[in-house]
Amino acid sequence: MTSSREVQLAARPVGAPKPSDFQMADTDLPALQDGQVRVQNLFLSVDPYMRGRMNDAKSYTPPFALNETMTGGAVGRVLESRARSVQVGDTVLHDRGWRTHANVNAAQARVLKDLPGVPLSAYLGVLGMPGLTAYAGLLRSAEFRAGDVVFVSGAAGAVGSAVGQIARLKGAARVIGSAGSARKVTYLSGELGFDAAFNYKDGPVAAQLREAAPDGIDVYFDNVGGEHLEAAISLLKVGGHAAICGMISGYNATEPTPAPRNLAQIIGKQLTLRGFLVTPHYDLYDTFLQEVGGYVASGEMKYDETTVDGIDAAPEAFIGLLAGQNTGKMIVRVGDTA
Amino acid sequence: MTSSREVQLAARPVGAPKPSDFQMADTDLPALQDGQVRVQNLFLSVDPYMRGRMNDAKSYTPPFALNETMTGGAVGRVLESRARSVQVGDTVLHDRGWRTHANVNAAQARVLKDLPGVPLSAYLGVLGMPGLTAYAGLLRSAEFRAGDVVFVSGAAGAVGSAVGQIARLKGAARVIGSAGSARKVTYLSGELGFDAAFNYKDGPVAAQLREAAPDGIDVYFDNVGGEHLEAAISLLKVGGHAAICGMISGYNATEPTPAPRNLAQIIGKQLTLRGFLVTPHYDLYDTFLQEVGGYVASGEMKYDETTVDGIDAAPEAFIGLLAGQNTGKMIVRVGDTA
Repeated sequence: MTSSREVQLAARPVGAPKPSDFQMADTDLPALQDGQVRVQNLFLSVDPYMRGRMNDAKSYTPPFALNETMTGGAVGRVLESRARSVQVGDTVLHDRGWRTHANVNAAQARVLKDLPGVPLSAYLGVLGMPGLTAYAGLLRSAEFRAGDVVFVSGAAGAVGSAVGQIARLKGAARVIGSAGSARKVTYLSGELGFDAAFNYKDGPVAAQLREAAPDGIDVYFDNVGGEHLEAAISLLKVGGHAAICGMISGYNATEPTPAPRNLAQIIGKQLTLRGFLVTPHYDLYDTFLQEVGGYVASGEMKYDETTVDGIDAAPEAFIGLLAGQNTGKMIVRVGDTA
Repeated sequence: MTSSREVQLAARPVGAPKPSDFQMADTDLPALQDGQVRVQNLFLSVDPYMRGRMNDAKSYTPPFALNETMTGGAVGRVLESRARSVQVGDTVLHDRGWRTHANVNAAQARVLKDLPGVPLSAYLGVLGMPGLTAYAGLLRSAEFRAGDVVFVSGAAGAVGSAVGQIARLKGAARVIGSAGSARKVTYLSGELGFDAAFNYKDGPVAAQLREAAPDGIDVYFDNVGGEHLEAAISLLKVGGHAAICGMISGYNATEPTPAPRNLAQIIGKQLTLRGFLVTPHYDLYDTFLQEVGGYVASGEMKYDETTVDGIDAAPEAFIGLLAGQNTGKMIVRVGDTA
C-alpha cells in the first residue's frame, strides 16, 4: 500500500490566497489498473494560471473542486508499471502534481530523457510548459522576427526569462524586461543579457519603458496586464504585435481591472493583440525541446529556479509566486532526487 | 477665376463639436499647374475618423490645422485639365473635400466609371472608402470565414451596413447588428436582411447580444468600442477574432475610456483583437469594386444615404454623424449633379 500526502483546496481565495485556503490530506492510493503507472513525485510545479482555477468561474480549465487534491505539472519516478510504454525507474512528466505519489495513466505521462547538466526540474520550467509557452507565444502568437525590439513583462519569471533569451538568441534588435525588485533587474541585465531592464515599482511603467525603448517596440509579451499593457500599447510601433500570455497583476483582484485606457490606439497603429494558451501549441514541443534544449545544454540560455522543500510548503510556494518572491521557475521539491 | 467656398476648422472641439468650431471661407483658386485638374465637387464625405483629426494630437493622420480648409473624400467633375490621364468632363474621386471647387493633382484623383443604377455618391460610401473598410476589415483583419456568426456594431452606418451584408452574402451562419434607434433596427432586420438586430439604448449590450447570439459569436467588427467591445469579448467563442475599426463611442470623450474590463478573457479564449486602417488595403480595391459593385448593381446589397444639401450645411452634417443622425453614408451634396 502506497500512501500519498496531498494538497487540497479548502476554500476559494478572495483576493490573495492565504494558508487557510489550503489543507493537507493523507490518502492510500488504490490498486494500479492496466495502463497505469505508480509514480513517486520528485518535483512539483506551481504556476500563476492555477490562481484562476481556484475561482469558481467558467474559464479555459475547470475550477479546482473544494476538498479535493489539486492538479498541476510534476516530475516523478516510476515505482510500478502496468503499462508497456513505461518502465519501472523511468522519469516521467505528468499532471498529477500537488501530491507526493500518484497513479498516472501512462498515456498522460511523458518519459523524460536525461540531458547532461540539466536537472529534471528543468522539465517543469525552461524545458517544460513555461518554456514552450515562451517559445510558442513569442514565435507564433507575437509573430516575432529577427530585428524586432521586444519588451517582456514579468521578465524574471519562468516564462518571461525564457522569452527574453529566446528573442535575444533569435536576433532581436533589443530586449527589454520589467520585474518587481532591484535584484531581479540586476539578474536580467546581468546574467540573462537583457539590453535594458527596469523595476516597475520605481515609477510609472510608461515612462520607464519609453526611456528603455525611445524608438518604440515591435513586440510585447504580456505576463502582467494592467498598467504594463497600457504602457506597451503606447510604445508599440505601427503594425506591432502583443502576445497576451497572462495578467498576473489582476489575478488576485476582486474587482475587474479597468485598463488599458488607451486601447483605441490599436486602430491607428494597426496593432494586433492576441491572447493565447500553450495547450494548442504542443505540436511544437519536439522542435522546441531540440532548439531550447540545445541553448540550455550549451549554456547560451540561463534559467533560474526558486526551490521550496517539502509537500507541506507547496501552498506557501504558490502564495509566494503570486507575490513575486520567485526568480525564475518556482519549484516544490518533494521526493528523493538522488 | 474660379471661386471656392470652403469649410475651415475655427477651433479644436472639446467633447462634441459645435457649429462655432467651424467657419466658412471663400477663396479664389490659383492658376492650374501642370499635372493638375480643376474640379467642381458634387458630393463631399463626412466620416467619423475626421473627429480625430480635429484634435491636436499625434495620430495616424496629422491633425487639421486651425483656420485652414479641411480635407476629406469628394467626388467631382473635371472643369479643366492640365494632366494627360484625366479629361474635362471626367468624374473623379479625390481627397480635396470640405469645399466646392479644388485644384487636384491628377495622380491623387481616380477617374470613376458610371455603373448603371448606381449614383456617383456611392463612391464615397458602399463603393468607396467605407465599403473597402468593411470588405478588408471583415475578410483580412477579422479573418471571416463562411459559417461564422458575425456581430457588427454601428451596423446602420456606412461601414457597418456593408460589413453585415458582405458577411451574409459570403455565407455567415448568422449576422447580428446593433444600432442606436428603433428605426435603424427595423432597417437592419428588414431591408438589409440581418438575422438579428438590437437598439443598444434599450438595455445592456451584453444582455442583448447574448439573447441575439445564445451560442456566442466568431467575429466582431467594432465601430463603437466601450461597452460594445466589452460585450463582444464576453460573447466571442474560443479562437474568435475582433477587427477594431473605430470606437465612435469615445471620439467625443474628454477623458480616456476605461474599458473593456474583461480584457483578460482574451487569454483563456485565445482571442485576437486587431486594429486596422483601410489605407494599406487599397491593393484590394479593384477586387472589391468588382465583387461589391456586382452585389450593388444586382440589388443583392442595399445601401442607404443620408444627404444634406449645400456646403454651408457640411458642419451640421458632421455633427449629426457623430450623434448618429445618419442611416448609411452621410453625404453632403454641393454641386450640380445633373
